[in-house]
Amino acid sequence: MSPKRRVFFLSDGTGITAETMGNSLLSQFDDIEFEKDTVPFIDTVEKAEKQVEIINKIAEEDGVKPLVFDTMVNREVRDTLLQCKGFTIDIFGAFIKPLEDELEIRSSHSVGKTHSIINSESYKIRIEAVHFALDNDDGARTRHYDQADIIIIGVSRSGKTPSCLYLAMQFGIRAANYPLTEDDLDDLHIPKTLKIHRNKLFGLSIDTDRLVAIRNERKPNSKYSSFRQVDMEVRGAEALYAKERIPSINTTHYSVEEISTRILATTGLERRIIT
Amino acid sequence: MSPKRRVFFLSDGTGITAETMGNSLLSQFDDIEFEKDTVPFIDTVEKAEKQVEIINKIAEEDGVKPLVFDTMVNREVRDTLLQCKGFTIDIFGAFIKPLEDELEIRSSHSVGKTHSIINSESYKIRIEAVHFALDNDDGARTRHYDQADIIIIGVSRSGKTPSCLYLAMQFGIRAANYPLTEDDLDDLHIPKTLKIHRNKLFGLSIDTDRLVAIRNERKPNSKYSSFRQVDMEVRGAEALYAKERIPSINTTHYSVEEISTRILATTGLERRIIT
Repeated sequence: MSPKRRVFFLSDGTGITAETMGNSLLSQFDDIEFEKDTVPFIDTVEKAEKQVEIINKIAEEDGVKPLVFDTMVNREVRDTLLQCKGFTIDIFGAFIKPLEDELEIRSSHSVGKTHSIINSESYKIRIEAVHFALDNDDGARTRHYDQADIIIIGVSRSGKTPSCLYLAMQFGIRAANYPLTEDDLDDLHIPKTLKIHRNKLFGLSIDTDRLVAIRNERKPNSKYSSFRQVDMEVRGAEALYAKERIPSINTTHYSVEEISTRILATTGLERRIIT
Repeated sequence: MSPKRRVFFLSDGTGITAETMGNSLLSQFDDIEFEKDTVPFIDTVEKAEKQVEIINKIAEEDGVKPLVFDTMVNREVRDTLLQCKGFTIDIFGAFIKPLEDELEIRSSHSVGKTHSIINSESYKIRIEAVHFALDNDDGARTRHYDQADIIIIGVSRSGKTPSCLYLAMQFGIRAANYPLTEDDLDDLHIPKTLKIHRNKLFGLSIDTDRLVAIRNERKPNSKYSSFRQVDMEVRGAEALYAKERIPSINTTHYSVEEISTRILATTGLERRIIT
């Protein structure tokens, strides 16, 4: 049995770009098991040399090259690193030069810019959006809905809270969420407090089986997690969306990233920040 | 005056990888203003053709090539797109083939794998971590601290909440947070409820001037945002960290991503998921 293939995501900054990029590429190789390590903040030649030693040792032990994804900006640090015995995917190395040629300008080669506080206005928007999502989670308050960019509705555990937080964190969007309860679903009307904001509403739906499983994790063998109850709520929510023409998506097979980007794509809502 | 250089992040999935990667590269070109658009879910040749028309029109209007970052997996869709008159940075195109050669296996070329629910166990860990962060925000409860991976402490608005949420969302880590108040800082002791969890504590600090500015946004001209009050709290927190040897970082110049990854790097805390 072959060991898992070792993978390193290396960066002089947070490592998030190397991780995101590397994981995207590796997700195309289903049949191989990878053992992944992220090493951020490698910002000196000394640290790079130490990392090279680690990689070389593993290369020798495993008898195959570890995969090394790097987003090193500093040339000296990168050159040191690229001497390792890993299989290197040098992301910046591949694209910075062509971009410099096209833009007819030299790049700054400054370290750690990607996920830094470049723009304090963006920073403010982002943090405020996160606090907005928290303060307006789960219908906690409704009086700030005039400041919301979007109000996500859905039954309990259909994915509202993580989606709102992701929209805030990633895109700076002010997202409130409001839980649809049995009472709301009985008469298939938009709850009173939401009526004046109906153009901001976005509905989440989910398959009954999936929601039963999710709720069972939380409250096993309860009415809350019973097929009958869940199915009634799910059908009610979907009927409400249809009747009131509220745009909606079914979240069953989607990650938080997919739900959030699909909401943007469906509504045309603009990102307030670019992270 | 030259117009802003147009940039497209194109994907057959969420577009998050193309955005992350593209923004990283563009952050190296300070002097150019970019106007960025993300177009996700381009998963048919027809959609790609439509996008090519848009790009070609802009190329003609602007007289320079729009920059096009793509992470298309499907070859036919990608080939269609690459016929556009933009300057294309074809991220998967550049690296998939060398990786296939090194791994001696063909990639699956399946669309939208990166940010999908590949692993439902990871999905569960992530969502539970997000709810844990919410339930244990701002010292709301302390009785679940035995389940916490980390407990972040700091004075009001030093960055605790966004950091906890990011640790949860990105790494599946269960992060609670507890606000240090004047009472805690008076006698420089770890608050009682935290004592038995002292090995989980991590402190955030921040420069007084920066915190005064942040608090002034929230409650202008209050005692809460006064230099005197803020400085007292900040010094108190730092003295507490030093006295009790609690690991800490100063968040003044760091983004949420940097704070979170530095916390991992400092504590050695392991990611529970890889997104």
